[in-house]
Amino acid sequence: MAEFSPGLEGVVAAETAVSEVDGANGRLIYRGGYLIEDIVPVASYEEAAYLLWHGELPNEKELDALRHQMSVARNLNSAGRGALMAIDSQADPMDILRTVVSAQGASKTLNKPSLEEAIALTAVFPTIVGAIQRRRQGKEPVEPRTDLGHAANVLWMMSGEEPASEKVHWLDTYLVMLADHGLNASTFAARVVASTGSDLTSCVVGAIATLKGPAHGGATLAARTMLDKIGSADNAEKWLTEAHARHERFSGFGHRVYRTYDPRAKILREMAKEAAPELHRTAARTEEVALRILHEAHPDRPNATNVDFWASVVLTGAGIPKELFTTIFATSRVSGWTAHVLESLSDLRLIRPASKWIGPAPGRKPMQLAKR
Amino acid sequence: MAEFSPGLEGVVAAETAVSEVDGANGRLIYRGGYLIEDIVPVASYEEAAYLLWHGELPNEKELDALRHQMSVARNLNSAGRGALMAIDSQADPMDILRTVVSAQGASKTLNKPSLEEAIALTAVFPTIVGAIQRRRQGKEPVEPRTDLGHAANVLWMMSGEEPASEKVHWLDTYLVMLADHGLNASTFAARVVASTGSDLTSCVVGAIATLKGPAHGGATLAARTMLDKIGSADNAEKWLTEAHARHERFSGFGHRVYRTYDPRAKILREMAKEAAPELHRTAARTEEVALRILHEAHPDRPNATNVDFWASVVLTGAGIPKELFTTIFATSRVSGWTAHVLESLSDLRLIRPASKWIGPAPGRKPMQLAKR
Repeated sequence: MAEFSPGLEGVVAAETAVSEVDGANGRLIYRGGYLIEDIVPVASYEEAAYLLWHGELPNEKELDALRHQMSVARNLNSAGRGALMAIDSQADPMDILRTVVSAQGASKTLNKPSLEEAIALTAVFPTIVGAIQRRRQGKEPVEPRTDLGHAANVLWMMSGEEPASEKVHWLDTYLVMLADHGLNASTFAARVVASTGSDLTSCVVGAIATLKGPAHGGATLAARTMLDKIGSADNAEKWLTEAHARHERFSGFGHRVYRTYDPRAKILREMAKEAAPELHRTAARTEEVALRILHEAHPDRPNATNVDFWASVVLTGAGIPKELFTTIFATSRVSGWTAHVLESLSDLRLIRPASKWIGPAPGRKPMQLAKR
Repeated sequence: MAEFSPGLEGVVAAETAVSEVDGANGRLIYRGGYLIEDIVPVASYEEAAYLLWHGELPNEKELDALRHQMSVARNLNSAGRGALMAIDSQADPMDILRTVVSAQGASKTLNKPSLEEAIALTAVFPTIVGAIQRRRQGKEPVEPRTDLGHAANVLWMMSGEEPASEKVHWLDTYLVMLADHGLNASTFAARVVASTGSDLTSCVVGAIATLKGPAHGGATLAARTMLDKIGSADNAEKWLTEAHARHERFSGFGHRVYRTYDPRAKILREMAKEAAPELHRTAARTEEVALRILHEAHPDRPNATNVDFWASVVLTGAGIPKELFTTIFATSRVSGWTAHVLESLSDLRLIRPASKWIGPAPGRKPMQLAKR
């Protein structure tokens, strides 16, 4: 009998060419062999998604075709719209997203996951997230615009206002960088769902369910909530020292894979200066103090700042309300989820691990009291 | 770097006392150390669920309390009802179930999974499945009845007619036997979702998404579809020989874990004689021929009949339309899913395996064509 692998740490559950987290060297590699820092300056979210799906960046014609495909798939169908309207507007945005995606993808037939469906699912996320935000504010949803790209449509449908180009840029950069990240928990969940021969919407719904948790996608909100509690750069030392004494975990620090500074956090930290100068000051001081405290407490542990910490600052600067952070994460990661599912189809095998029995020895007899 | 474990076969991903599949000896052990064949004669579905949640069978008072809790939680809330009505009545029943459960569990706060919620989620499945069937037929949903148990409510809400006691018995026995089965793919998916700190509805929705696939819960429908194609005992030899020559997989045979006859299949095979005599004859002859062909082709493989094969016959006898089989599987397994999630809370650890990079060496530079 094999040994128990808690959290499956270090267990290789898939071979993939979609992305690779080289934690030892602090590198994130996207499909085709590109480092994330080389992709960010040249690719919009649509181009990054194309890369994850196809293995190559699109040429002009291919990009135009993708943009067109996405723009015709952005609207909710009647099932999606009905499900959206059925749920309390103040429910957790991730619960609404999970439900609306599930409804939008309901089908009469069991379809094998396809690229067309991956594109359509990805395209509709901004519409759902925008509508969630509008309903939270008691406002009518705003229709998507065909003349705007993916990131701009997110901001447009949230606010109903022409989004400022720098906000589009910050959000777009975030979306590019969060689109895939090796075999993270939600991507793994998508592959588990796919492994039974289930459909693509089911894979994405399972991934949304997984991303929601604070140990995964929910961490960006947690980081921002911590920064809100700290309030200002001046208060960081006091707040963190007291929190540490209460044995509170610092949100936004530590990662299962990275042993060094997350390359995405580095880019976001730089961008945060411009995107949210005031919050950047608080965050920069918080990072300094937190890393010092963590290093003193655990000199052996690589307690580097993670992507969620600086993402929370940049998303704030881009005008995303913190309650929507996890849905924006999902809006990015859906291209990676679907790319992994499509990749897995070439050698589909049921993901069904073993478990170790820790209950009593079998053979105990029940008393005949039951079944009345 | 660890080796790639395809399908995580043999990798121990959890320690559990909820259930154990002893594949080598053909035994299924439920929580507390009971063999499935000892539980079936004494426990109703409610008692089996109580056992999986608590580790002990309930006494009379505890069972009454559980039945009461379930009966007050059976109704759909407005989100669940709204989502149900939003989706095309002819959509895949698993897609509707996935969406309605997601809507029903939408919440304003992120709640830690609890037993109360597990009971409520389990209680509402018959209502959803009943309503799906009614809508498929263009009929109004039927309200749950507080004087009926779980299995009887399934049949009542599907048909609107007083269910025959033997049908209730067959369905109830099926529900008891399918309630848990070690770390099967959907249960594993539920644990992956839980591992990020997500909520119980998210866990169950992820599990439904996973169960849907034909390599998992969808196998019962596939088995029945094959039996329909065979049509009669007389045609089994001819049909199976031709299908084998076409390299078609026989639905209802083979399992990742069992090396010998599945103890649940044994019980269902016996029950099928009475529940569906005509289909039993076709199935018995099909089993005989299929096992002979499979054994001749792969003398080394343990190609035993699996639970789906005989479940498809018993569920038919109980009056369940085959299109609803997978939703009935879910109606049973939800108690196991939730029991596993609750168990996992005591030592929650992010399930995040590693992957092996099979893409090109990192460092390739993109051309500056992009980002227009």
